[in-house]
Amino acid sequence: MPTEHTSRQFDSELETVRSRVLQMGGLVEEQVVNAIDTLINRRLELADEVIAGDLKVDAIEVEVDEACARIIARRQPTAVDLRMLMTVIKTITDLERIGNEAKKIANMSKLIYQAERLSTPRFSEIRQMSGIVLDMLRQSLDAFARLDPSAAQQVPRQDMQVDEAYRTCMNHLITYMMEYPRSISISLEVLFAAKAIERIGDHAKNMSEYVVYMVEGKDVRHTSFATNEREMA
Amino acid sequence: MPTEHTSRQFDSELETVRSRVLQMGGLVEEQVVNAIDTLINRRLELADEVIAGDLKVDAIEVEVDEACARIIARRQPTAVDLRMLMTVIKTITDLERIGNEAKKIANMSKLIYQAERLSTPRFSEIRQMSGIVLDMLRQSLDAFARLDPSAAQQVPRQDMQVDEAYRTCMNHLITYMMEYPRSISISLEVLFAAKAIERIGDHAKNMSEYVVYMVEGKDVRHTSFATNEREMA
Repeated sequence: MPTEHTSRQFDSELETVRSRVLQMGGLVEEQVVNAIDTLINRRLELADEVIAGDLKVDAIEVEVDEACARIIARRQPTAVDLRMLMTVIKTITDLERIGNEAKKIANMSKLIYQAERLSTPRFSEIRQMSGIVLDMLRQSLDAFARLDPSAAQQVPRQDMQVDEAYRTCMNHLITYMMEYPRSISISLEVLFAAKAIERIGDHAKNMSEYVVYMVEGKDVRHTSFATNEREMA
Repeated sequence: MPTEHTSRQFDSELETVRSRVLQMGGLVEEQVVNAIDTLINRRLELADEVIAGDLKVDAIEVEVDEACARIIARRQPTAVDLRMLMTVIKTITDLERIGNEAKKIANMSKLIYQAERLSTPRFSEIRQMSGIVLDMLRQSLDAFARLDPSAAQQVPRQDMQVDEAYRTCMNHLITYMMEYPRSISISLEVLFAAKAIERIGDHAKNMSEYVVYMVEGKDVRHTSFATNEREMA
């Protein structure tokens, strides 16, 4: 049997991992905010900051992944502790992918604004999607922090709103491209940026599902909790 | 200490999980082949088969995930066995995402061919990308099956070829859309299909990196093994 001393050490290791995930989440959230600010408000000075910041996100992912493997090997956790570590391993993968999407948005913003001064399609749907997606990310991280799946219960419904806003955005861009064929290249970059934001929503939704698994021990992926398809066709 | 009996049971459990992953890989490969056949050769009768087949892929993911958690909790594996299980958990996530992309391609094919009989852009780059991506998927699965990272060493280089073919494809589509603005909607579906194929390549590359981690115990993600960025900006 583990001594009380070992058990306290184990708890503190788990706590360290958990708080590192939340730090990673905070950093990723900041990356997304800055990437969207770059895109919508032409804040190009932020783009390189986002691109450089992604290396930090990647490094935390590798570090937390290794820490989880080390804890599983040494402490041989079971039940809820093991589920927590499995949840962390999955969550950091989605956070890393959200970081990638933020970096893509920063790169696309550079392309969009460095192009000749053609007219640019409007960003109203992108602004709307961004607001929802950031809220989803915050709620998922909050649910993870408080071990409370109910904190994330809005997330699947919000994901449907994002998907709908994405479709509206795409339809506007198609009309715009038909009217101004010379704007097609730049409109595609705007479309890809919208798609990247939509995918951030998918990842936030994945994260909210892991919290249910962690707390309740049941896998709700591919079920009705996941109201709509995880990724749009 | 585990008895010889327990150890044999453990080995057989690990072997079952490994072979289930390979089955899942075979199924996902078939899904991708059928989705691309639907798209390139207008084999619409395959589309619904792919869409239905995705439920099977999802079910295997959940099943293998649970099996891994059960084995870790009961057998408390360490070192190479634990790394193998962690690799499995990551690999099935990428396989499931590849399955999603195949489903998306099937759905897009329906949209492309159900639209009015407008002229459709040519598929030559998509054909080329598909060949490389399927090869990457097979090599990654083969490397996993043989626990041999060298079997996957072509994969990062192939991923760069896919990214290049994707860019060529996009440029052709942009030219096509400028020439035939009425084809913009359908051309975008073709572009999204190309993007889905490009992402399948990214997932195959992730899988090849996990094999290096499993066998050599080192994490090569975000390093020079991963020659280019995991996902294109």
